[in-house]
Amino acid sequence: MNAKNAPTTAHTAAGGNAMNTADLGLPVDVPSTALFTDRYEFTMLQAALRGGTAGRRSVFEVFTRRLPEGRRYGVLAGTGRVLDAVENFRFDSGILGFLSDQRIVDETTLNWLADYRFSGDIHGYPEGEVYFPGSPLMRVEGTFGEAVLLETVILSILNHDSAVAAAASRMAVAAGGRPLIEMGARRTHELGAVAAARAAYVGGFSTTSDLAAGFRYNIPTVGTSAHAFTLLHDSERDAFTAQVAALGSGTTLLVDTYDVAEAVRTAVEIAGPELGAVRIDSGDLLLLAHRVRQQLDDLGAHQTKIVVTSDLDEYAIASLAAAPVDAYGVGTQLVTGSGHPTCSMVYKLVARAASDDPSAPLVPVAKKSMGGKTSIGGRKWAARRLDAEGVAEAEVVGSGPVPPELADRQLQVELVRAGEVVAREPLDAARDRHTAARAGLPLSATQLSRGEPVLPTEYA
Amino acid sequence: MNAKNAPTTAHTAAGGNAMNTADLGLPVDVPSTALFTDRYEFTMLQAALRGGTAGRRSVFEVFTRRLPEGRRYGVLAGTGRVLDAVENFRFDSGILGFLSDQRIVDETTLNWLADYRFSGDIHGYPEGEVYFPGSPLMRVEGTFGEAVLLETVILSILNHDSAVAAAASRMAVAAGGRPLIEMGARRTHELGAVAAARAAYVGGFSTTSDLAAGFRYNIPTVGTSAHAFTLLHDSERDAFTAQVAALGSGTTLLVDTYDVAEAVRTAVEIAGPELGAVRIDSGDLLLLAHRVRQQLDDLGAHQTKIVVTSDLDEYAIASLAAAPVDAYGVGTQLVTGSGHPTCSMVYKLVARAASDDPSAPLVPVAKKSMGGKTSIGGRKWAARRLDAEGVAEAEVVGSGPVPPELADRQLQVELVRAGEVVAREPLDAARDRHTAARAGLPLSATQLSRGEPVLPTEYA
Repeated sequence: MNAKNAPTTAHTAAGGNAMNTADLGLPVDVPSTALFTDRYEFTMLQAALRGGTAGRRSVFEVFTRRLPEGRRYGVLAGTGRVLDAVENFRFDSGILGFLSDQRIVDETTLNWLADYRFSGDIHGYPEGEVYFPGSPLMRVEGTFGEAVLLETVILSILNHDSAVAAAASRMAVAAGGRPLIEMGARRTHELGAVAAARAAYVGGFSTTSDLAAGFRYNIPTVGTSAHAFTLLHDSERDAFTAQVAALGSGTTLLVDTYDVAEAVRTAVEIAGPELGAVRIDSGDLLLLAHRVRQQLDDLGAHQTKIVVTSDLDEYAIASLAAAPVDAYGVGTQLVTGSGHPTCSMVYKLVARAASDDPSAPLVPVAKKSMGGKTSIGGRKWAARRLDAEGVAEAEVVGSGPVPPELADRQLQVELVRAGEVVAREPLDAARDRHTAARAGLPLSATQLSRGEPVLPTEYA
Repeated sequence: MNAKNAPTTAHTAAGGNAMNTADLGLPVDVPSTALFTDRYEFTMLQAALRGGTAGRRSVFEVFTRRLPEGRRYGVLAGTGRVLDAVENFRFDSGILGFLSDQRIVDETTLNWLADYRFSGDIHGYPEGEVYFPGSPLMRVEGTFGEAVLLETVILSILNHDSAVAAAASRMAVAAGGRPLIEMGARRTHELGAVAAARAAYVGGFSTTSDLAAGFRYNIPTVGTSAHAFTLLHDSERDAFTAQVAALGSGTTLLVDTYDVAEAVRTAVEIAGPELGAVRIDSGDLLLLAHRVRQQLDDLGAHQTKIVVTSDLDEYAIASLAAAPVDAYGVGTQLVTGSGHPTCSMVYKLVARAASDDPSAPLVPVAKKSMGGKTSIGGRKWAARRLDAEGVAEAEVVGSGPVPPELADRQLQVELVRAGEVVAREPLDAARDRHTAARAGLPLSATQLSRGEPVLPTEYA
């Protein structure tokens, strides 16, 4: 599962680019992530350089003030992509020329950017971990100038990927161990789709229809045929015959183009009882699954599986729990976060040097105005406290020393040390971590109905 | 506005790639779009090649069965990106190696793909046009093999971009001529954000905060500072002084980090009455806008503008219509389609050759089963019928000859002829077209409240 998580040249575009562009979520090389940035990051940098404050040691934290309404837990995804984005945040002559031509920054700032390379430290929750309001998901420390520039790209990745992973996790719970197929590429941006397939895998999906996701992340890909293939032929029989001839009797035949019962009969007649699966993509899936299972069994095709696909979400999946369904294909509702297509993660300055003196101590800072957008200043740790049975009972967040009883329950890990990524891992590690983290929550975490966050966040 | 819509080498990554990769929505070269494809397209191709049907002339159409609930019209966006995707849909050795290694297709199919280049015709609604349920938005004609492969990438682009453009259009209506700033990059996938900024521009936004969108599409970029900049300094006064020193008094100062009234006083004191603008990012924007306007006027800063940003959507924008607001910055709700992050566009085979004979006539085809996913077969035209006052009164769709009275009201244009793109245009053309198309609809089109599609779709 991890072949594509290491740098590879086999499947990337030819070119003389020396940067490490592995695992960027793209099927192609991306020489820089430096323009995935809001303009104000650059104007702030320019003003800070001119004012002499750009070098102040600063601590930024990523967190959410709330979970999407009714959700019981969040799922962090995208951390691996963030590490690549940070590593590839560089300014070549093309980008510097653009910033100069458009008068976005001045000459001093351009010179500073030409040498840019993040040299600070990043800690954070590891990918796949669950989270709650206030969880300090990522902490970026460095000079103000080097850390402020990373705001937009970090938030883009984490907000998108975590939204998909959270939906995937709920669907995986609803599916109760039956495999889930990601097939939402057509419903979202073509490269967003690649990241979505990756996040869905972290959240518990088994496979994807998206070949770019297979190419970049080595996620297993699946897919056989659409209604167009049946309609291309003069009869459904011709279509099934052609598909079985090309793909073998283990293929999946789509049986709802005309009449389902007729199609199932024809399918088994052509492929024999060793037919791999039938797919149902419309109609009352609960009713059809039972009827088709009965029909397959009557025809002796006891091993033939039933795959259902048709605007499924976690509730529709759950409603099929007692139906003879073997796998679910999910598209739209997965890649759009099942009602919550983004998270509300923010990237806030929580501490900075007390003065321009390089040895000045850090002081906590926070926005103070009315309006509900306040945050808590200070560099924070986080730990998940367990009850006597070993079940999580609280997300504890603090900015002082870590209480000894929580020392081995800390959630943050070192991700980047002095600019070097130190926490690369295969995607399966994040997927396994998510399964374990979810299993450690109180039982009510996995109820699909609306509720409060399943753990309270306590500030120590 | 159109410098970046033409191929450019100035701002693209160095490399020996000979393909035309202009305008792909990426700040980097993408040598191929061929893997933004669901696996089943390739397995269908393989089965059709083996069965001898891959060469049957086929007609696929893109349409929606419905608008998002309550919406009055749809906005087509992404057409320009589709044209680039089709042009760059090629198979290099890296991609072929992947398809071979993963046993996705057989040797015959690999050989066929190695020479792939779309050689058919594409017609469609031009970008920025409005649409309704059943509007034939794009029609792809070619052999089954060459046309079926394009399904996923075409749908990804149109479903994503049109969702954002529809939200943008409603926000532009609500803003009533006041400028709108796109600033949602941090809330969506980093490359989805670039496409979202482009779609927002088509829908009526004026500027973006996203530098990658400025780089690729030459959309004007804006942005000055965040709360972090104020918090970096020992006082708000120090922060404003540094920003004005670096960016001039025409800059926009963020006034809600501590106390708004105090900040406005300090801002005008430092920048003088020529202060460009103040930005308010939290609190009761209606109340604050009035208070801040009064305060600015009292301080003699009559020309200083007020920019508001804070989880705005079309309803919040409309609620500020009578407030002294000069510009709106919109993020989350724009890039997530204001409740509808995707469209429900599908790509369906509607006609194909009656036999494998290359001169065989086309026959209409359509899925027939129950379940609501039926479609209407046949190659379709579309026209917008006007009433006596010249206002649109119906979207007329048909598959026979076009009635003479509708001949000059046809909506589809030629986009690709025998594989060559023939309809490139600057992004401003799509933006202007959208404004004109919306203005041609009945007045009730622009009501924000829920309703039915403002035009009925009639099948001739």
